[in-house]
Amino acid sequence: MRENYRDQLQHITDDLSEMSRLVEAAMSKATKSLLDASLELADQVISEDDVIDELGNKIENQTMSILALQQPVASDLRLLAGALKISGTLERMGDLASHVAKQAKLRHPNLSVPRDFLETFSKMGDIANEVIRRSTRAIAAGDTEQAVDIARAEGEMDALHRDLFGKVLSDEWSHGVEAAIDITLLGRYYERFADHGVALARRVAYILTGEMPSKSDLEA
Amino acid sequence: MRENYRDQLQHITDDLSEMSRLVEAAMSKATKSLLDASLELADQVISEDDVIDELGNKIENQTMSILALQQPVASDLRLLAGALKISGTLERMGDLASHVAKQAKLRHPNLSVPRDFLETFSKMGDIANEVIRRSTRAIAAGDTEQAVDIARAEGEMDALHRDLFGKVLSDEWSHGVEAAIDITLLGRYYERFADHGVALARRVAYILTGEMPSKSDLEA
Repeated sequence: MRENYRDQLQHITDDLSEMSRLVEAAMSKATKSLLDASLELADQVISEDDVIDELGNKIENQTMSILALQQPVASDLRLLAGALKISGTLERMGDLASHVAKQAKLRHPNLSVPRDFLETFSKMGDIANEVIRRSTRAIAAGDTEQAVDIARAEGEMDALHRDLFGKVLSDEWSHGVEAAIDITLLGRYYERFADHGVALARRVAYILTGEMPSKSDLEA
Repeated sequence: MRENYRDQLQHITDDLSEMSRLVEAAMSKATKSLLDASLELADQVISEDDVIDELGNKIENQTMSILALQQPVASDLRLLAGALKISGTLERMGDLASHVAKQAKLRHPNLSVPRDFLETFSKMGDIANEVIRRSTRAIAAGDTEQAVDIARAEGEMDALHRDLFGKVLSDEWSHGVEAAIDITLLGRYYERFADHGVALARRVAYILTGEMPSKSDLEA
């Protein structure tokens, strides 16, 4: 029975890692669909979002069943409560990947962002990839050290996000209102994605240590 | 002991209701700060967001302690797991009120939105108020019926949100790029707020019935 219980907890961790890997694939494809104006990739991300949500529901149901049937305490309880939080966060990160893909689809066959912004969004995509890759590692390996790097990556994302606004609002802006709106929304999706990554990493640290690191704790 | 346990559960519900009332006050003041360009109100909303977050942390700590010390099952367990989710949702709704207030503050002493958009944002504010007022009632009274009205209100919010884009992207748009961006972000904050309200109402229904209503279940 005891081993069965440990297996159940391990399944929760495995499913969370798998969910994080699905979000990783989704965000990576979403950025590609944006940079390459690829309808095929955008459609994939949008349709695969259901798979992420279903895995989130499965994790939640399993977590509730373990909470009801076992009497978890201490770090086991933190893992289970954390699983409810983390699966919700990953669901929202998957939604954001889907929002990026929908934006790419909306402007297809044109690019959703002016050519001189492709580099910035390529960088934002790289940072998003780093955030979610490190999140997967944090969950799978119970690695609290990832949190510092995720927070650093989020800082870089914020800087790029501020840059975007600076460019859109500068006197040199020549791409019109529609492109300004597209860039504003896309910038916000990437910024939110990184922000959720930090919340996720803090939650993993809490599961493992019982202490929730503050944002300033994570500044190296 | 048993009564003590019931009291503990009631405290969780009371604190969630109180948290929802704080978000209600925050969003109502945020909309006022936007429509009246009131720096004082905007500052209030921004500084009071900490109070909302602290209450969220308190709810989470108390929930964890009840989960560890008691052996809740069935609807009690759904309440406690739901409290973790709902407090997270209310925290994000409070953040969105704060985002609206920050936008009002950013353009102070000017209005953040062109005069001909004040009516639309006033309506969005009214819908946001209805959503969070009904959310408070759903939590406090365990009222699953609110979910249908919250979903209807969210539909109205979506329609206003689409209208906004239509106007900003029309040929008649004459307010420049900065106002377009402000309106895009503000519109998204209100739309997200209503969306979180629906998630909250579905969660309350799940706590009470053990079934999570789908979005289409809520369409009257």
